[in-house]
Amino acid sequence: MRAIFCELDNEAATGSEVLISGDRAHHLQVVRIKLDEDILVLNGKGKRFCAKVVSITKKAVGLKVLKVESIKLKHQINLAIALPKKDAFEDILKFATELGINTIYPLTSEFSQYTYEPSERLERIIENALVQSNNLFLPRIAAQTELGDFLENDNGSLIYFSSIPTVTEKKIKDEGPMTVLIGPEAGFSSGEDERIRAYKNIKIIHLPTPILRAPTAVATSVGYLLGSIT
Amino acid sequence: MRAIFCELDNEAATGSEVLISGDRAHHLQVVRIKLDEDILVLNGKGKRFCAKVVSITKKAVGLKVLKVESIKLKHQINLAIALPKKDAFEDILKFATELGINTIYPLTSEFSQYTYEPSERLERIIENALVQSNNLFLPRIAAQTELGDFLENDNGSLIYFSSIPTVTEKKIKDEGPMTVLIGPEAGFSSGEDERIRAYKNIKIIHLPTPILRAPTAVATSVGYLLGSIT
Repeated sequence: MRAIFCELDNEAATGSEVLISGDRAHHLQVVRIKLDEDILVLNGKGKRFCAKVVSITKKAVGLKVLKVESIKLKHQINLAIALPKKDAFEDILKFATELGINTIYPLTSEFSQYTYEPSERLERIIENALVQSNNLFLPRIAAQTELGDFLENDNGSLIYFSSIPTVTEKKIKDEGPMTVLIGPEAGFSSGEDERIRAYKNIKIIHLPTPILRAPTAVATSVGYLLGSIT
Repeated sequence: MRAIFCELDNEAATGSEVLISGDRAHHLQVVRIKLDEDILVLNGKGKRFCAKVVSITKKAVGLKVLKVESIKLKHQINLAIALPKKDAFEDILKFATELGINTIYPLTSEFSQYTYEPSERLERIIENALVQSNNLFLPRIAAQTELGDFLENDNGSLIYFSSIPTVTEKKIKDEGPMTVLIGPEAGFSSGEDERIRAYKNIKIIHLPTPILRAPTAVATSVGYLLGSIT
């Protein structure tokens, strides 16, 4: 059965019929769903609907919900990343979606190389990764902020993966949401590094690896965090 | 200073002059080094040489070694992977090199999709990743073997990242070399999964994430292992 992404409401129940119109209907038509086709709809909000296509008009698509499944979040990890080049950022969006990241905070820093602008292209990248990885939760991308402004907010527990050799936090307690903080490809400047270390709720990890490209650093850091949570 | 990969012998000492001929010299000429240029030579065997180019002829390149540095292995992790498609395997070679993997064991399994053949292209991919990540150790790629044959050898400690939900090993003792074992994109078959679980020195981990593509799985699994080593 084909899986697609569509922002169905979480309330859609088994047996109910849902009429999808506007942009969402257009999107379903773009992926060429057919009348009577059974499809798996991931709504990006924690539910997976097995549904049959019961009507298609120019403006709307009707779905009959056959079965609803919901899955709990596997972890509560966010990602704050000073942006590398565009290609690397697109890979990061893919990886973050596969990994089940909740919110992505694009940061501007001294050596960041790209400015994030929401676009259809980036939405499609995330939606395709969502479907491929069978992830039921669409990551949210926050507006880009300056690293300094980001650090002035209360972001809860920050896990800073520093490229500078550091005494590494060995065990991290699972006390709710955590945000992995990663520098751009050239790293944070020493002034930025100092400001990050002064953040009140911070844990610092230096990965025992050679230098990682930003997308590899994202996957490895999230893996490291999952492995060190007790 | 430009960094290049060249298989200089570990014995080359500060002040000595080294004449590089044959394929290795050709490779240096391909990357267009110039007379009098200072270059950083990563030899892939644990050493980094700061050297000056003192002669270039058609058949040989002379280097004067100015400084030698050596770095210890950061960890001793190998990777055994049932091969996904070619593109994904090439990404895996990059990631494995960035991560400092020692030996890569390409495996054939029921759902593997590609057969590894040594090639100049793959060598270049690894050498470029080595230089970019400032890794001093070139990963070795073993000949491709059947999963069954691989399991019959003594491969020391295997850390099996299973896509099947499993009681996960929480803490892994650092007792020397370990090999991360990862299935192809469609996973191992249930028969293969059973045979793997019967291997005598095995620890099993199920990542708490959605489904990962093979390259993402490699980085995340190695990160997880590094985070869970005690």
